[in-house]
Amino acid sequence: MAQKTFTPSELYDAWPVLSRAERVEGFEFLQRDDAESFFLQLSLRDRANLVLGLPAGERRLWVRLLAPDDAADLIQEAPQKERSALLELLDNATQREVKGLLDYAEDDAGGLMNTRYSRLRPEMTVGEAISYLRRDAQSRARTTYYAYVVDHQERLLGVVTFRDLIVTPADKSIGEVMRTQIIAANEEMDQEALSKLFMRHHLLMVPVVDAEGRIKGIVSVDDIVDVVQEEATEDIHKIGGAASLDGPYLQVSLAKMIQKRAGWLAALFLGEMLTATAMGYFEAEIARAVILALFVPLIISSGGNSGSQATTLVIRAMALGEVRLRDWWRVIRREFTTGLALGLILASIGLVRILLWQYWFAAYGEHYFLIALTVSLSLVGVVMWGSLMGSILPFILRSLGFDPASASAPFVATLVDVTGLVIYFTVAAVVLRGTLL
Amino acid sequence: MAQKTFTPSELYDAWPVLSRAERVEGFEFLQRDDAESFFLQLSLRDRANLVLGLPAGERRLWVRLLAPDDAADLIQEAPQKERSALLELLDNATQREVKGLLDYAEDDAGGLMNTRYSRLRPEMTVGEAISYLRRDAQSRARTTYYAYVVDHQERLLGVVTFRDLIVTPADKSIGEVMRTQIIAANEEMDQEALSKLFMRHHLLMVPVVDAEGRIKGIVSVDDIVDVVQEEATEDIHKIGGAASLDGPYLQVSLAKMIQKRAGWLAALFLGEMLTATAMGYFEAEIARAVILALFVPLIISSGGNSGSQATTLVIRAMALGEVRLRDWWRVIRREFTTGLALGLILASIGLVRILLWQYWFAAYGEHYFLIALTVSLSLVGVVMWGSLMGSILPFILRSLGFDPASASAPFVATLVDVTGLVIYFTVAAVVLRGTLL
Repeated sequence: MAQKTFTPSELYDAWPVLSRAERVEGFEFLQRDDAESFFLQLSLRDRANLVLGLPAGERRLWVRLLAPDDAADLIQEAPQKERSALLELLDNATQREVKGLLDYAEDDAGGLMNTRYSRLRPEMTVGEAISYLRRDAQSRARTTYYAYVVDHQERLLGVVTFRDLIVTPADKSIGEVMRTQIIAANEEMDQEALSKLFMRHHLLMVPVVDAEGRIKGIVSVDDIVDVVQEEATEDIHKIGGAASLDGPYLQVSLAKMIQKRAGWLAALFLGEMLTATAMGYFEAEIARAVILALFVPLIISSGGNSGSQATTLVIRAMALGEVRLRDWWRVIRREFTTGLALGLILASIGLVRILLWQYWFAAYGEHYFLIALTVSLSLVGVVMWGSLMGSILPFILRSLGFDPASASAPFVATLVDVTGLVIYFTVAAVVLRGTLL
Repeated sequence: MAQKTFTPSELYDAWPVLSRAERVEGFEFLQRDDAESFFLQLSLRDRANLVLGLPAGERRLWVRLLAPDDAADLIQEAPQKERSALLELLDNATQREVKGLLDYAEDDAGGLMNTRYSRLRPEMTVGEAISYLRRDAQSRARTTYYAYVVDHQERLLGVVTFRDLIVTPADKSIGEVMRTQIIAANEEMDQEALSKLFMRHHLLMVPVVDAEGRIKGIVSVDDIVDVVQEEATEDIHKIGGAASLDGPYLQVSLAKMIQKRAGWLAALFLGEMLTATAMGYFEAEIARAVILALFVPLIISSGGNSGSQATTLVIRAMALGEVRLRDWWRVIRREFTTGLALGLILASIGLVRILLWQYWFAAYGEHYFLIALTVSLSLVGVVMWGSLMGSILPFILRSLGFDPASASAPFVATLVDVTGLVIYFTVAAVVLRGTLL
């Protein structure tokens, strides 16, 4: 792989599978202007990694290419010990802005915002605003599509689009043209709530204001697309029963990958040990009727699968705001009916299966019908129980202040396994009393 | 609930839990201008449902409020038999545009695009362009932030932002000002690829062109946020082992909810029946050593959990483009090592658990050490097997042309359950030969 030169798009495609050294090498081979647009289309994490891989003397050029919010994000991605060196690569004015941004949590509106936006005063005419913006344009790194109208205390009064300025006569005042119904975000709003705000109102930019209504920066929808994708990834990893990887699958180190997975897996394993305890409790029944053991995996996995469905649907509905905490009772009613219906469907399939095997192979001895009944009744109970547990658990977690996505499919399956065994052997004790047991 | 009047934001919050009749009623109680902004912030599905719930005489007003692309989407959301009636509510010009859009698949760039955008000619001066856009603005429904420069065959030559127009001297020509490095989408590009294009280049708008390079419309990033969210929801539903609900959890009818879940659940149940067959095959061993049955749930669920982790991580990595088909060998190598490490961790915990229980409760008889060995060795095998199956399955599905997200956590768990039993009883047969078996 060494010494290979890439075109920009080859390099972009190969990027995820290259080592850091190969990336730096591939990047350094690019033409200067290719390199610049290539750099800007990398994700922040990749940019940070690339900059840190470059020789110290070459870093300044690339860091200075970034808008203050991107520079702040890059510095946040870098290891603690490299941060102040990176900060010092910036010019003084940008350094101050970046330091201000670094005070915000990375996941807040304040941490996502760009501090370079255009300000206007309401008493300006449209013509004056246009010449002001024309002068202002040279000094700003990033194009935006709105100009924000503020008073002398920097309090946000309204917004005009660049389009408004173009289509309005030059002698009107900005105060007459501006839109005053503004949707703004508080600087502490977290990124998930912020992305809902964007989606609900189909916005391209949202100004971020402090408690006194002073504008602090703007968040752009292209950063929100990343947020939505990132939050979905985090939820998906949790639903699958691993901690969020915080990085691309192939780039996370093996040690970190194992650590991110071992925690939950070990916790689930400890929980699942209760099944051995539960089974031990029914050891005498199993010894008397070994046939009961044959259906154990079938029964508990059916509960686990229905629980996994229910929990995933409810977790996602919560993340999308379709289900709120106070809807818990409606969800439980739905899952009760759904679980009952699904349980009856599986019970019928199970009944037919056992009767057919008995008819064809005489597999289950003289009490085959009682066994079929035990399995079917248990399936109804276990599937209903799985659906209910799977749907309630995200509510419990959220109301305790945890992330509902932690009610992962494996977590619910583990919970349902233990109770599923109890349901199964209890039903067996009732149905088979006096015959097999 | 009837007769209750809502403020717009109360109505918006209550929306997911209201019936269609309650929604229409709440909506009709809003003030005219509130109703308008309320309508425009509903999702397309909600708008379509609301319009269909209104008396026929009131529909025209609301349908005409929509840009052609939104009208086309609304008509696509409506039941087949209502579509032509809805189409006829539009004015003739919009009807033609909408009919053109309806020819595109809903999930293609062509199906997402807006046909109302501003066109300029390269030979215009900036001043002429501004006066042209000023006149043009009155006739267009939606503000955009770019104007597209086309030749006489409507072929796309470049793009100018409204900001460019403002900050450039009025006598320069558009041809000099325009940016010619344009990222455009083909009209058949599917929405997932399109969203990757937006994210990769941090775009706000993408022009859609046909094979001859003629511009057909533009896609805006706010629609892409919806696409990203929708695709993630679809994947999450599949990962949880249900078909994608295609609607908010509380609004999907119970019958549809059951149908979306019963299919996979029944399929998994049929697969899981193989566990009963496998267990039947080892019935004699279980009868001789009932103690073996106690650890069956623990062993198979550990395989299922590790498989669920692996499959979810790989599915998501594929969806994000972090892992491609040709990376299969790298993924297998990673999962081999990860699975081995995770298996050893669980095996150690299992070993300690059995030895402790033996020490405290003498729970497992004289051959306790051989049992502990059987369980631990099986755990290593089953967890490795689970990780490998979980990671390979999405590759197999994708290379066969299926959606890798169908390798759901429950699907992998079911596969691993059957093989897990075989691994466990085979290890037992070797380790316990001559003692318990």
